[in-house]
Parts: sequence; structure tokens; C-alpha cells
Amino acid sequence: MQKKKKSLTKRREPLAICRGHIWLDGSEGTFLGYGRVVLLERIREFGSITKAAKSMELSYRRAWVLIDSMNRQAPKPFVVTAAGGKGGGGTLVTNEGELAIKLFWKFHDDFQKFLEREEQNLGF
Amino acid sequence: MQKKKKSLTKRREPLAICRGHIWLDGSEGTFLGYGRVVLLERIREFGSITKAAKSMELSYRRAWVLIDSMNRQAPKPFVVTAAGGKGGGGTLVTNEGELAIKLFWKFHDDFQKFLEREEQNLGF
Repeated sequence: MQKKKKSLTKRREPLAICRGHIWLDGSEGTFLGYGRVVLLERIREFGSITKAAKSMELSYRRAWVLIDSMNRQAPKPFVVTAAGGKGGGGTLVTNEGELAIKLFWKFHDDFQKFLEREEQNLGF
Repeated sequence: MQKKKKSLTKRREPLAICRGHIWLDGSEGTFLGYGRVVLLERIREFGSITKAAKSMELSYRRAWVLIDSMNRQAPKPFVVTAAGGKGGGGTLVTNEGELAIKLFWKFHDDFQKFLEREEQNLGF
């Protein structure tokens, strides 16, 4: 069995780690942030505001306020409730909502890369 | 007198504004953020923790906790208290503290530029 070798080059521990968080503001203040984007994803998953809210330990009322805030500030609503019919309607994330999810995670990924670059160049 | 001309190209209002905030973590959690950096700047300005704290509506105790947290996590202390002598000592920001202030505002400036770029490329 091979013995575990110790590296001769000492790994430089970072003295400081770059952290942060991001969100999008709209005409009324917060428009899109981590919580709202996850809520959209859960609505897509469950097709129901009640189930989406429950999965995030949010009240239905709170989830509704967040959805309403996004829908009012978006160019087109992110979440719609389909009318009854066979199978009984349900709640849907629109194409505009899907685009919002995609754009937000792109912003998040770019931000993580920005933080990594900053950390490497920090000079501490 | 020349009449004010109306631009024919309609200025595109951004639908969403990229926002965020940043800080540095150290070995014990938060190491450097906006409040801590401004506190360092005020100590440099007033040469006194009491005056610096008062100017920020912080208690002396709270300011001291923040300074102690920075000093413990920094490679070398950011704030030192000079011994009495002629003129009676006073509190100083060290060279290491000055570097921390500079590096943090550089990180902040880079972040503002990052947010502007993201906003322009957002695609909403």
C-alpha cells in the first residue's frame, strides 16, 4: 500500500474570502432574487402555488405576494393560473418566467466567477 | 436662442436594475464589509474609537467588537492604540489597515462595474 505523500509546496490559505449576494430591482423595488427564482422553479415543478409554498416553508399568502410583485413588474406575467377544464387548470410558469429563471442564474454564475477572480487578485 | 431638441431615439428604460452587496469573510466569519471599512476611515479621521463610533451612531462597545474582530482575523492588526506620552497616545489605523481600506474599495469599484456590465447584457 502506497504511503500518502505530503505535498512539498505549502498550499496558500486565503486570508479573505470574497462573498456577496445579488438581486434585481424593478419599478417597485425588489423584482427578482434567490427566493423568488426558487419559488418560480417550485411552481414549475409542482404546478401549484400551495405545494410550491409548502416546499419552501412559506405561507401561501407570502408566496402569493412574491408572485404578484414579480407579475406586476415583469414585461409579461411570470406565473399564470390556467382556467379549469379537463384536469382542472393549475398554475404555470410562462415563457417569460422561464427566461427570468435562466437570466437570473446566468447573473448568479457570472457573479460567482467575478468573486473568484477578485479573491485571486485581492492582494492580502 | 436655439430651441431644445427632442431626441428621436427613445431612451430604453431598463426593466431591471442589477443590485448586490459584497463583503470579505475571514477565519471567524465576516472580516471586512462596508460598515467596518467606514469605521476604519472614521478612526483615521478622528484618532479616537469613541468619536468614530459616535459619528456612525454605534455604541463604543459595538465599535470595539468590530475592531477586535478585524484585528484578530487580519495578518497584522488594522487598529492600534499608541501609548500615552506627550499629547496622550491615541488610536491609529496601521499600514495594514490602510491597505485593507484600499483593497475593499477596489473590490467595491470592480463590483459596481460588474453590475453595470451585467445590466447592459441582461437581455430582459
